[in-house]
Amino acid sequence: MKKVAVIMGSDSDFPIVQKAVSKLKEFHVPYEVHVMSAHRTPTEAAEFAAHAQENHFGVIIAAAGKAAHLGGVLAAHTILPVIGIPIKSDALEGMDALLSTVQMPPGIPVATVGIDSAANAAILAVQMLALSDADLAKALQEMKISMAETVRQKDKDMQKNFE
Amino acid sequence: MKKVAVIMGSDSDFPIVQKAVSKLKEFHVPYEVHVMSAHRTPTEAAEFAAHAQENHFGVIIAAAGKAAHLGGVLAAHTILPVIGIPIKSDALEGMDALLSTVQMPPGIPVATVGIDSAANAAILAVQMLALSDADLAKALQEMKISMAETVRQKDKDMQKNFE
Amino acid sequence: MKKVAVIMGSDSDFPIVQKAVSKLKEFHVPYEVHVMSAHRTPTEAAEFAAHAQENHFGVIIAAAGKAAHLGGVLAAHTILPVIGIPIKSDALEGMDALLSTVQMPPGIPVATVGIDSAANAAILAVQMLALSDADLAKALQEMKISMAETVRQKDKDMQKNFE
Amino acid sequence: MKKVAVIMGSDSDFPIVQKAVSKLKEFHVPYEVHVMSAHRTPTEAAEFAAHAQENHFGVIIAAAGKAAHLGGVLAAHTILPVIGIPIKSDALEGMDALLSTVQMPPGIPVATVGIDSAANAAILAVQMLALSDADLAKALQEMKISMAETVRQKDKDMQKNFE
Amino acid sequence: MKKVAVIMGSDSDFPIVQKAVSKLKEFHVPYEVHVMSAHRTPTEAAEFAAHAQENHFGVIIAAAGKAAHLGGVLAAHTILPVIGIPIKSDALEGMDALLSTVQMPPGIPVATVGIDSAANAAILAVQMLALSDADLAKALQEMKISMAETVRQKDKDMQKNFE
Amino acid sequence: MKKVAVIMGSDSDFPIVQKAVSKLKEFHVPYEVHVMSAHRTPTEAAEFAAHAQENHFGVIIAAAGKAAHLGGVLAAHTILPVIGIPIKSDALEGMDALLSTVQMPPGIPVATVGIDSAANAAILAVQMLALSDADLAKALQEMKISMAETVRQKDKDMQKNFE
Amino acid sequence: MKKVAVIMGSDSDFPIVQKAVSKLKEFHVPYEVHVMSAHRTPTEAAEFAAHAQENHFGVIIAAAGKAAHLGGVLAAHTILPVIGIPIKSDALEGMDALLSTVQMPPGIPVATVGIDSAANAAILAVQMLALSDADLAKALQEMKISMAETVRQKDKDMQKNFE
Amino acid sequence: MKKVAVIMGSDSDFPIVQKAVSKLKEFHVPYEVHVMSAHRTPTEAAEFAAHAQENHFGVIIAAAGKAAHLGGVLAAHTILPVIGIPIKSDALEGMDALLSTVQMPPGIPVATVGIDSAANAAILAVQMLALSDADLAKALQEMKISMAETVRQKDKDMQKNFE
Repeated sequence: MKKVAVIMGSDSDFPIVQKAVSKLKEFHVPYEVHVMSAHRTPTEAAEFAAHAQENHFGVIIAAAGKAAHLGGVLAAHTILPVIGIPIKSDALEGMDALLSTVQMPPGIPVATVGIDSAANAAILAVQMLALSDADLAKALQEMKISMAETVRQKDKDMQKNFE
Repeated sequence: MKKVAVIMGSDSDFPIVQKAVSKLKEFHVPYEVHVMSAHRTPTEAAEFAAHAQENHFGVIIAAAGKAAHLGGVLAAHTILPVIGIPIKSDALEGMDALLSTVQMPPGIPVATVGIDSAANAAILAVQMLALSDADLAKALQEMKISMAETVRQKDKDMQKNFE
Repeated sequence: MKKVAVIMGSDSDFPIVQKAVSKLKEFHVPYEVHVMSAHRTPTEAAEFAAHAQENHFGVIIAAAGKAAHLGGVLAAHTILPVIGIPIKSDALEGMDALLSTVQMPPGIPVATVGIDSAANAAILAVQMLALSDADLAKALQEMKISMAETVRQKDKDMQKNFE
Repeated sequence: MKKVAVIMGSDSDFPIVQKAVSKLKEFHVPYEVHVMSAHRTPTEAAEFAAHAQENHFGVIIAAAGKAAHLGGVLAAHTILPVIGIPIKSDALEGMDALLSTVQMPPGIPVATVGIDSAANAAILAVQMLALSDADLAKALQEMKISMAETVRQKDKDMQKNFE
Repeated sequence: MKKVAVIMGSDSDFPIVQKAVSKLKEFHVPYEVHVMSAHRTPTEAAEFAAHAQENHFGVIIAAAGKAAHLGGVLAAHTILPVIGIPIKSDALEGMDALLSTVQMPPGIPVATVGIDSAANAAILAVQMLALSDADLAKALQEMKISMAETVRQKDKDMQKNFE
Repeated sequence: MKKVAVIMGSDSDFPIVQKAVSKLKEFHVPYEVHVMSAHRTPTEAAEFAAHAQENHFGVIIAAAGKAAHLGGVLAAHTILPVIGIPIKSDALEGMDALLSTVQMPPGIPVATVGIDSAANAAILAVQMLALSDADLAKALQEMKISMAETVRQKDKDMQKNFE
Repeated sequence: MKKVAVIMGSDSDFPIVQKAVSKLKEFHVPYEVHVMSAHRTPTEAAEFAAHAQENHFGVIIAAAGKAAHLGGVLAAHTILPVIGIPIKSDALEGMDALLSTVQMPPGIPVATVGIDSAANAAILAVQMLALSDADLAKALQEMKISMAETVRQKDKDMQKNFE
Repeated sequence: MKKVAVIMGSDSDFPIVQKAVSKLKEFHVPYEVHVMSAHRTPTEAAEFAAHAQENHFGVIIAAAGKAAHLGGVLAAHTILPVIGIPIKSDALEGMDALLSTVQMPPGIPVATVGIDSAANAAILAVQMLALSDADLAKALQEMKISMAETVRQKDKDMQKNFE
């Protein structure tokens, strides 16, 4: 199975990013986790992306805050789908990272998920891999059923507040 | 090859959405184009998404403006990756559609591209399909080379302004 | 008397939503409280809305955060008035939920109240029901008088700070 | 049948507001249209709202731009549901009117629809009146069916672009 | 000397508003402090403003949060200058109150100061009264000199960090 | 009578600013109009403000766009009330000028009116001068009556659309 | 004298960017103009920046719209000061480009000027070069004097409107 | 070597600003730190800027919050490059200071760094001085290498979480 690369721009993003890693583990999808900066280690980031396909990666997840260029910089060097997680930092409530990640110019998309939505980034990566992996597709279907069941159970629990 | 579904919430979105269709054509990816509204034809939209996988779709692209729920509504009913194109409408410069598309709750991601970035949505869909299609991967690589060449040519042309 | 349905997208919204429930209790309006997700239990949400009228509901209140589609999804399946409460979540100060709730496309309005304004959602529901219920109308009038009295009392109390 | 009052803060809002009037006409709902300013004719506005119930109004629609206080000012003087239409003006893309209309303090809700969404305001008013009017409820149901049919037809028409 | 009215929409605004009161005290300007709501006691607010001039007020300061209509509602009923203090509340960082206060329609200005800037509102009121009061003008001049001196002293103190 | 200074940061602001001048003329208030830039002629601006009081000015109106410092810079050098008009320019819909004008630090208020609201700035200036000028106060009262009459007439005219 | 590199992400930015070039010409500063994309020609951009210092550049000006990564990507590869011009594009009024350019992470600043403020970018570049070039410093001083003179002249011209 | 002036508008900004000072120390760049207010000590600020060049300053760093005019006011009086640090204050998440700093009018640029990004302001100042100082250029190159090494080490450390 192809691997998912989970790249964060700074190790301070790890508390958010680890939710992506946990979710990939749940799906038994192989992954690598890296700290790479679009601005402080641009060559490593470019190299990583340029060789990601031949190194058996299928999807790259990039998490970064502020002027979040990481997703775009990786996408510039690969044809693999790149998923961007905008990270909220001290100011502007994550709007800076969101716009820096999603508003990509023609030709180089970054598949952006919600601010700090690391688990969703992983699920999206799994959905992509599941296009050619029936077991993963089944696992996603089961997660969907299980999520629905959880909501139904919470609905039942909620009724107890009103008996 | 799996098909790409291109769904728009209103036919008034077509001038934007057709750039996605053109791009899919360029890559010889089979597609279907539909007008379906999360709010006016919710059952059709749900049905379409629920059966998309068995109907040989691989990716769904959803374009909608304002409180753009279409991507989320489709994603609720399928495990296929759903790509959201926020459409700019008369007020708020597209911010409403962007936030309505990207800020999805846990469990149901929508892969969001930039406001009105229909061509990028198509490229992202092709990148997903290319994960299990070497010809598409090659075509993407060629597009990347060609885009770079175009920029290099424009750089040369630019010099002529300063001779 | 027709019932009010209070639906929240996640049980984590309950601390806010319970202010709506308390207010409905104050007016002795019958209600049901549910956890239903536009994205995780879309079928339940659609079913609930589609049958709300025949199940003796008069108004639906929907509370959701982020890309808050719940109000819109319910409104898609009913002709009952749907009131949306945008819930503030971790990023963007509630702006995402506000725009996702209020900016509905033509034909499917959601009556949106302020961010986290659950009590106001309940009052608005009572106002709608009071259109055909003179007792409720009287109760609303009394609440209005009582609110004014409270402000007047606070004005008097304030004077004590300056004697 | 109870009447709907359609109040605009300035006659320059009429090109938008008339879509509300047309929609009310479609439903054969009686209405009155007024120009009243929360700031230039505050007494008239207060008087109108204070007597709206006894004057056989059921719902008040208020359209205003900029620091759009009209909905709130009317709501302060009545227990009837007040629907606010934020009008986009020269600056800020309608955000000023939206926030001024929707962010009402506790006790005095304004049911806010999207920026310039006058037709939706009318539909919302009809939904409220339909709570005690089976014919209106039926008309709303028919409108819903008709809207769906229109979208389905547009979907079919769209296919012709791709034959 | 004319009095300054300091009106707040809710007594929860008092921790901010008291800075205005303190500043007025510093300048020995007579004042009254009131809790009056544009929405819950609209008649009292209108009455107060309508009679403010004859009741020997010179300036009205209005502090309110969210859809902050208080300044505008008071200004609608008086020709006295009305100063608006937008109060930051739980969501949107004060942007709602700022736009609701400052974006007044033609004919009815509200002199808006910064979010939560109660002391500045008082200084502005004093500046207005000082137009016809040489002692107040002198006191303002002294405050300006004193503020400059404070900054100069802080500049000197700062140097000690770097010796 | 004290004069009003109308200062604009650039002569390109004149089409907006002239509405302030017209309004001052209506009230027969003496005025001077200047082009002075906080950044290009800072010394002139500082000098002007520093001597405005002794030069028989009562109020200063400052209009500027973008990072609109003009109001603040003038206020720094005078104890006269300074009214700021934020001017909308090519980007950001006037939000930059609004925040740059209104968010003044403690001690130096700028009385901010709405974006491009030059007439309101003049009315506010007249309100300030009217504090010690009964004729101006009467003229303001008449303007208020006349504005109300205009709205009432427009309300009547509106009815003709619906006969 | 060291050269200034003026890099734009797309030749569609040239109508804005040429104001930077004109300004550099005015100061007789040598320059090169290039079209280079952070995303479509990332290697060329990286190479250019990495060798800019040895190729006798002193300052790099980067103009880009949307998720404007160009300034950051160039800054990642050089120790020369990089000036970023955020370019307004079809949506969001330039806010996306502004935040993507200015909100750089620790260690890699981009000196950001206003949206579309190409002439200011050039002046800033000249200011940097003037630190070690007395003639340029003198030219800047003259420009400052000339700008002030222009404003003074416009002030005089303005008076003619009011004679 | 030319000195860097670090000016803050209020000593309450010092916790942020000291990161700029620390960074200048690291590079052994001489500096002065001052508290000067664009509004409370405008003359001192103007004087300081006007004489900065002859007092052997090369770059001015200005940190201010809210309607942050400090950078612009200093830039108005000098041809030295002025770097602006927008400081986040109690409301609006720093957006007010960012726009007030960066959106400068033609002719007077302020080189703006990210909100609260004091260290980056210092690095930018060093980059400017390094244009004519080979030792500083070398030190910057070493910092760049060291930053990259730190990221690489963090990447390695990160791997330990996944062994």
